[in-house]
Amino acid sequence: MAKIIGNSLSNIPWQEKPEGYEMPIWRYKSNPIIKRNAIPSSNSVFNSAVVPFKDGYAGAFRCDSKSVSMDIFAGFSKDGVNWEIEHEPIVFQSDNTELLKKEFRYDPRICFIEDRYYITWCNGYHGPTIGIGYTFDFKEFFQMENAFLPFNRNGVLFPRMINGKYAMLSRPSDNGHTPFGDIYYSQSNDLEYWGHHRHVMATIPGNDSAWQSTKIGPGPIPIETDEGWLLIYHGVITTCNGFVYRMGCALLDINEPWKVKYRSKDYIMTPTTDYECIGDVPNVIFPCAALTDADTGRIVLYYGCADTVTGLAFTTVDTLLDYLKANSL
Amino acid sequence: MAKIIGNSLSNIPWQEKPEGYEMPIWRYKSNPIIKRNAIPSSNSVFNSAVVPFKDGYAGAFRCDSKSVSMDIFAGFSKDGVNWEIEHEPIVFQSDNTELLKKEFRYDPRICFIEDRYYITWCNGYHGPTIGIGYTFDFKEFFQMENAFLPFNRNGVLFPRMINGKYAMLSRPSDNGHTPFGDIYYSQSNDLEYWGHHRHVMATIPGNDSAWQSTKIGPGPIPIETDEGWLLIYHGVITTCNGFVYRMGCALLDINEPWKVKYRSKDYIMTPTTDYECIGDVPNVIFPCAALTDADTGRIVLYYGCADTVTGLAFTTVDTLLDYLKANSL
Amino acid sequence: MAKIIGNSLSNIPWQEKPEGYEMPIWRYKSNPIIKRNAIPSSNSVFNSAVVPFKDGYAGAFRCDSKSVSMDIFAGFSKDGVNWEIEHEPIVFQSDNTELLKKEFRYDPRICFIEDRYYITWCNGYHGPTIGIGYTFDFKEFFQMENAFLPFNRNGVLFPRMINGKYAMLSRPSDNGHTPFGDIYYSQSNDLEYWGHHRHVMATIPGNDSAWQSTKIGPGPIPIETDEGWLLIYHGVITTCNGFVYRMGCALLDINEPWKVKYRSKDYIMTPTTDYECIGDVPNVIFPCAALTDADTGRIVLYYGCADTVTGLAFTTVDTLLDYLKANSL
Amino acid sequence: MAKIIGNSLSNIPWQEKPEGYEMPIWRYKSNPIIKRNAIPSSNSVFNSAVVPFKDGYAGAFRCDSKSVSMDIFAGFSKDGVNWEIEHEPIVFQSDNTELLKKEFRYDPRICFIEDRYYITWCNGYHGPTIGIGYTFDFKEFFQMENAFLPFNRNGVLFPRMINGKYAMLSRPSDNGHTPFGDIYYSQSNDLEYWGHHRHVMATIPGNDSAWQSTKIGPGPIPIETDEGWLLIYHGVITTCNGFVYRMGCALLDINEPWKVKYRSKDYIMTPTTDYECIGDVPNVIFPCAALTDADTGRIVLYYGCADTVTGLAFTTVDTLLDYLKANSL
Amino acid sequence: MAKIIGNSLSNIPWQEKPEGYEMPIWRYKSNPIIKRNAIPSSNSVFNSAVVPFKDGYAGAFRCDSKSVSMDIFAGFSKDGVNWEIEHEPIVFQSDNTELLKKEFRYDPRICFIEDRYYITWCNGYHGPTIGIGYTFDFKEFFQMENAFLPFNRNGVLFPRMINGKYAMLSRPSDNGHTPFGDIYYSQSNDLEYWGHHRHVMATIPGNDSAWQSTKIGPGPIPIETDEGWLLIYHGVITTCNGFVYRMGCALLDINEPWKVKYRSKDYIMTPTTDYECIGDVPNVIFPCAALTDADTGRIVLYYGCADTVTGLAFTTVDTLLDYLKANSL
Amino acid sequence: MAKIIGNSLSNIPWQEKPEGYEMPIWRYKSNPIIKRNAIPSSNSVFNSAVVPFKDGYAGAFRCDSKSVSMDIFAGFSKDGVNWEIEHEPIVFQSDNTELLKKEFRYDPRICFIEDRYYITWCNGYHGPTIGIGYTFDFKEFFQMENAFLPFNRNGVLFPRMINGKYAMLSRPSDNGHTPFGDIYYSQSNDLEYWGHHRHVMATIPGNDSAWQSTKIGPGPIPIETDEGWLLIYHGVITTCNGFVYRMGCALLDINEPWKVKYRSKDYIMTPTTDYECIGDVPNVIFPCAALTDADTGRIVLYYGCADTVTGLAFTTVDTLLDYLKANSL
Repeated sequence: MAKIIGNSLSNIPWQEKPEGYEMPIWRYKSNPIIKRNAIPSSNSVFNSAVVPFKDGYAGAFRCDSKSVSMDIFAGFSKDGVNWEIEHEPIVFQSDNTELLKKEFRYDPRICFIEDRYYITWCNGYHGPTIGIGYTFDFKEFFQMENAFLPFNRNGVLFPRMINGKYAMLSRPSDNGHTPFGDIYYSQSNDLEYWGHHRHVMATIPGNDSAWQSTKIGPGPIPIETDEGWLLIYHGVITTCNGFVYRMGCALLDINEPWKVKYRSKDYIMTPTTDYECIGDVPNVIFPCAALTDADTGRIVLYYGCADTVTGLAFTTVDTLLDYLKANSL
Repeated sequence: MAKIIGNSLSNIPWQEKPEGYEMPIWRYKSNPIIKRNAIPSSNSVFNSAVVPFKDGYAGAFRCDSKSVSMDIFAGFSKDGVNWEIEHEPIVFQSDNTELLKKEFRYDPRICFIEDRYYITWCNGYHGPTIGIGYTFDFKEFFQMENAFLPFNRNGVLFPRMINGKYAMLSRPSDNGHTPFGDIYYSQSNDLEYWGHHRHVMATIPGNDSAWQSTKIGPGPIPIETDEGWLLIYHGVITTCNGFVYRMGCALLDINEPWKVKYRSKDYIMTPTTDYECIGDVPNVIFPCAALTDADTGRIVLYYGCADTVTGLAFTTVDTLLDYLKANSL
Repeated sequence: MAKIIGNSLSNIPWQEKPEGYEMPIWRYKSNPIIKRNAIPSSNSVFNSAVVPFKDGYAGAFRCDSKSVSMDIFAGFSKDGVNWEIEHEPIVFQSDNTELLKKEFRYDPRICFIEDRYYITWCNGYHGPTIGIGYTFDFKEFFQMENAFLPFNRNGVLFPRMINGKYAMLSRPSDNGHTPFGDIYYSQSNDLEYWGHHRHVMATIPGNDSAWQSTKIGPGPIPIETDEGWLLIYHGVITTCNGFVYRMGCALLDINEPWKVKYRSKDYIMTPTTDYECIGDVPNVIFPCAALTDADTGRIVLYYGCADTVTGLAFTTVDTLLDYLKANSL
Repeated sequence: MAKIIGNSLSNIPWQEKPEGYEMPIWRYKSNPIIKRNAIPSSNSVFNSAVVPFKDGYAGAFRCDSKSVSMDIFAGFSKDGVNWEIEHEPIVFQSDNTELLKKEFRYDPRICFIEDRYYITWCNGYHGPTIGIGYTFDFKEFFQMENAFLPFNRNGVLFPRMINGKYAMLSRPSDNGHTPFGDIYYSQSNDLEYWGHHRHVMATIPGNDSAWQSTKIGPGPIPIETDEGWLLIYHGVITTCNGFVYRMGCALLDINEPWKVKYRSKDYIMTPTTDYECIGDVPNVIFPCAALTDADTGRIVLYYGCADTVTGLAFTTVDTLLDYLKANSL
Repeated sequence: MAKIIGNSLSNIPWQEKPEGYEMPIWRYKSNPIIKRNAIPSSNSVFNSAVVPFKDGYAGAFRCDSKSVSMDIFAGFSKDGVNWEIEHEPIVFQSDNTELLKKEFRYDPRICFIEDRYYITWCNGYHGPTIGIGYTFDFKEFFQMENAFLPFNRNGVLFPRMINGKYAMLSRPSDNGHTPFGDIYYSQSNDLEYWGHHRHVMATIPGNDSAWQSTKIGPGPIPIETDEGWLLIYHGVITTCNGFVYRMGCALLDINEPWKVKYRSKDYIMTPTTDYECIGDVPNVIFPCAALTDADTGRIVLYYGCADTVTGLAFTTVDTLLDYLKANSL
Repeated sequence: MAKIIGNSLSNIPWQEKPEGYEMPIWRYKSNPIIKRNAIPSSNSVFNSAVVPFKDGYAGAFRCDSKSVSMDIFAGFSKDGVNWEIEHEPIVFQSDNTELLKKEFRYDPRICFIEDRYYITWCNGYHGPTIGIGYTFDFKEFFQMENAFLPFNRNGVLFPRMINGKYAMLSRPSDNGHTPFGDIYYSQSNDLEYWGHHRHVMATIPGNDSAWQSTKIGPGPIPIETDEGWLLIYHGVITTCNGFVYRMGCALLDINEPWKVKYRSKDYIMTPTTDYECIGDVPNVIFPCAALTDADTGRIVLYYGCADTVTGLAFTTVDTLLDYLKANSL
């Protein structure tokens, strides 16, 4: 039995696995939990991040507007299922005004480290790169320097320092609908200057695990377990009618997380429902956040559906690790 | 309160805006009004034009055949909702036999000027260009010279002469699935020779209004109002899984229609229903015609859905102009 | 009245044509007959072949795994509708071990000739080419030499020798999502060495029959009739949102099958249902097998739906030939 | 013996055909006559037009600047070989200030009609289209309306009205390095409004005349002969290392110039010299102007070389027509 | 010391290796030996094949015409350097008239087997494939069936049966400027039906041997030596300005020629001279034929230069094998 | 008169500007100074860096091998013109063995800071990124951590700390022949961790300065002057026959080098000679190093020519700054 290293979260949203269901992740029955028009200005709400906050939850939500501008918004929930999202995007403060010029902001992650909530997101600065900011209260937000040069997407922090350094996973990319992309690991003493970059995982060419043959990118904040870091990630295949985004997972070495102990040959989730297969970008599931309860091993995933709405799905650390080990590359 | 400059149309099809509905355009509840197999030979019926005719309505319909050939067909309706479409395509007459060789014909518009109904369409003449013809009775049709050299799509006439000249909006393009396209304005003394071309609107690069970042094209015949010409147009974004076609609107100067007074930063309608998101080309709404009632300010839109069926949607001139002014670029 | 030259198949699956239905092929009402997770390892089951076997049916099924690897599996059915598919892929025997190294295997066809069941499939050998094997009992399988050099797809044998030679239709292609492809005819004395290749049918450029303008490929084993070989094939168009796969048919000369007597200008079937329009690759129907009953002229088609599930559809030789002759290029 | 219908030009530049030379066009021995740095600001001088003017010659020259901006400059010569080009680009006058905003200007042609010298060029107006202006003295220049909507290149006027109308050849294109392009004919009563467009010549697919398989475009002002209009044009093939531009010719019907009487299956000139094969765009010869002497039938071509310098070449009307008739498609 | 297994050829063209020259192949000092206008109709003469014939030499020459049509022509030479090429293309005889319809013919090879000269070439039959014909006297030519289905290029026969079968190397490709391509081996009992295809060599991805990273194809008829078959082949890299074609060699197992004993990591020749770097397709050297003298080990290569002219180059079997072994992958 | 802030270099290679030469940079008369076969293994030697070293010069040279592998080699020269290049590539030492696995290495720059020579280069680490190493004596070389995540090219250090930080210019890119690319500025306390990235210069779209419309990248180590940092960079345009690489320069603010004071609208050098226009990649000049003499203001550039050989060119700080100011964007 694997153990999640982390906090208890007794009010974690939960539904039991349906009878006879065979895949390691099961959907919330009333998905999607957030509709495309959740706030007056929104065209779609997806690829969003949530964390336990006070006696409930807070989050940073990607709400594409009805002008189809991409931006991130704060939101709050008592139960993790029903959300109130602010109607105005997050306003960051910084002494450096150039940093605050935002071309676009999307696909946030939130990571609590030490005393504050760090938000990372895909930040438009002459191309997509990884923006970093933090908040203590989800009211005031402070923007730091971008982590990297463009072009990058999916900056995902680890929830504690490793070997005395902050650590981030990301996917270097280009300036468009990148048709390639591996996962790398970067380190920092201060979350300001980054280096010691390590390659973690590549796409899998050919027929062996074709669902992740075009590009892969890290999803939620890695989950610390007694067997290593549990990373949930997205993988993409190019069909003759476009991309399909699926979900996989990997177990990374606890001290050298660029070393992969197990990696899912089989995907762990694939688009099958209408709200995943129909929408602005069909056939996309894209996980950005996970809640975990160390007591029960429960894991709740928040994932974007068809780049249009937000879904919830459930698993446990044992379910996932067992599946991973049984279906590893 | 804005006024439509035009005729009364007391029998205009109509449904009230649903309670709590927030977008400026609302769908007919029994959409689609024309199914894909509306005539025996049809694969799909969409991107079509209608006008008041006698005590009812007439139209020119794009019916792609079961060989997926594109052609236009006449049709008639008492109420604007239930349509009888001819089983044979429109036959034009002309002294010039070369003109009558049709490679393909699609996406018609109809514009009543003075004494007759002008039809414009995308006409295959060694590439797509703008064909022009007219009819008095929707029985006999007369073909004129093509307006322009290839390559062009979406030729849309103004319903009266402006500055003593006929006027047409169009979208120059290329010979395939053009991934670019602005709207231009052209003038003519006789609908035969065209010149004095003016650029009207470009696509919007970047994040500001990304739904119209790939190409835009004029939709229905512009609606004359006391504040200017109300133009409804389509805008296209390129996602990693293809194009999404949405709808926007603009207010053009009444005397110099190449000058844009307002232009929708937010789209006014986006594909959300099954019949818009599923079909031969998913995620397409494409408006080609509008009925208006000057008495009530009501506007009814006919639009193609997923390049497969035809839908109906409603708004009013005030609803649209208020929204436009509140959400203008 | 046309006649199928072949065996009786009294237990052929069957449903009558729905009242008022106008197309020449009608779907099984409980489609899809095989779901995407039909076996524990499968992501999808589609593009598969079946034949009468003993007092029921046997088949070779393309099951893409949850790692999205493509392979073929044997399966059995009493009624042709309810299938039991093996959980492990077909294992071929051969003295030549290099041949048995499989990069991937997909889109099988099965053809009974003389005393055994030949299976042909798209076989990965430094690129896709046509693999050939045979079985007597669907338990032991023997692999022969690949028919051709790469790159090729859709190798379809004729059910008897023609002019004293084995004959195969195929679609030469390239190493990716080939955007071109005609149908050719090849001959062999021994199913081992192939030559005397003949061009059969090309794609149709332009507007005349645009559904088959990008590529075409043979589907089920050709059906021998007293008027010629009835070939059902797929045709593909490139829309701005990807490919659409439809179905057509042709009548080939009985002795010189590279000569086309009739060819469907209109398609005979197009994706319209949810299970054909939604899935891993939307808007695909892809026929790989047909059952026929010479007594009644009934034809049952097995076809892949959206590269995800398997459907069943019905027609008769008369229905299809009448439609073909009435709608021929 | 064919006759040029036109003026005498006794001082036409001239060199005799070299002994044993077999092609119908021979080069000036001291080519290039204009070097890339002919004026202080120029990176290259090519694709330019000249006409007899007073007792010498005048011209409009495409000089790309050292910032690689494309613009046109006036120039003068006594002998047609040695040229003085102005150091500042041509300044057009117009009442319409929007017209004068130039995005870019390139590839001019000059055509004397009635009382003035008309200049047409590829004019940047929200994309490339055909600009028209005129001058009486090559000192003052007046800009008219653009002839067409974008996208178009190579607007070439006929030197007199035909059937009572001005006439222009052009090549519709797109907004980049267009990989397609046919020649069309357009008509006008006033050089301001254009219509009655006719297709003249298409590219030749396949192996028959592959040098003109990608795109073709009209070159110098058509030369009137007693057998029809002699059109010299460029044709382009796509090799695996880019485009090669060659020269061909055609004889157009004198009254219906969109009807082609002869068209060169063989090219009439191909890049072979260093100054044609090496430069900013290797392997390009591009004719934009011709001088003719009706007395002797001599024709002198001015052509751009490798998009870098300007060359001179010679032929006679008989040489060209004989070759054309002997090598016609 | 390696030995060529073959005939003496005492009058083989020859020049000694220049003093201090370090590469294994050296050029004929008066290259190119065949100019682009070698026959009246030719635009270029390259990628051609020669063999000893009577007391001199005969050959099949690719002469692209001045319409840039590709065809093959017979030619004769006393010394292998000075060639007389026929002015009309080779005319093949066959009972099958469909075979004689030629779309295009290019890049011939000639292989003497038993009693006749076999010619193979890239033959247009609904796409490029491998044509085969033979002659006894270079006056009468007989066409056989195409070896393969399209798409294929570079069909190169072995000069004797191997394991009792005829053998051919080739490069499967697609219908354009194929950006991929490996070398395969095919076998036949009768030169009519082909099978038992084996993969021989793939391109080399990455930095290890990048000159052959895009595609490779067999060149001259393999040279039999006492150490194996010496194959000279072309390899292609994609630069940002197009393809560069270079030359390499390999030593294939004498009895199982699909097994590679040595393969050149370093190229053996690269374009450096003006006639190789400038022309219709710059930076191409393309070997199609070799003469050998078993007595001296001399090898003479005929190779196309820049797709424009024909060059000659020299080496010896020892020079090449030593270099190959010292620089093998 | 501008002043170079730096050392005297009395033995700097030098030739005076030719009489009447108008461009700000003039070539060494005996270019290229390094031929393609400068060392036995080399296919080409270009894009290389040199620095004053002891009483002469040392350098790091990009020598592509005859297998067309890219690597860097040390070299030495007395006079900066005649070079001896080592026959084996540079061997770096590091405790981290993963770092030493080189996929490829190319386009080095050398920058002396404080006490040692830093070498930066394009380093293959799961894609191109910026490698950093140093040497004291050009005998022993020590490799540090890569500066950035892939994908990046052209990492160019500043020769002293700025605002207390090391500084580097670079061009983020993708994993192929990147068709885009701006210049950015990055900062570091230790050359190990990088951050505070700033955008410096973008490409120039449209006609204004088209030679730098596709991509730009920093060249030699910036030259400190009393007016700011003088940056020489390459700029690229996309023609229909590929890229052309030219040279430009800019003056950056001395304390905030991401602020551009002047930037060349006109290029300062363009390919015109045979050795720049003919070679493995025609039409490329690519500067990687500059020598400067503070006493005289002389500047010597080392630049790659056609990706094949290495050239030398001369200017002075005044010549360049005057030209820059007179031709600035």
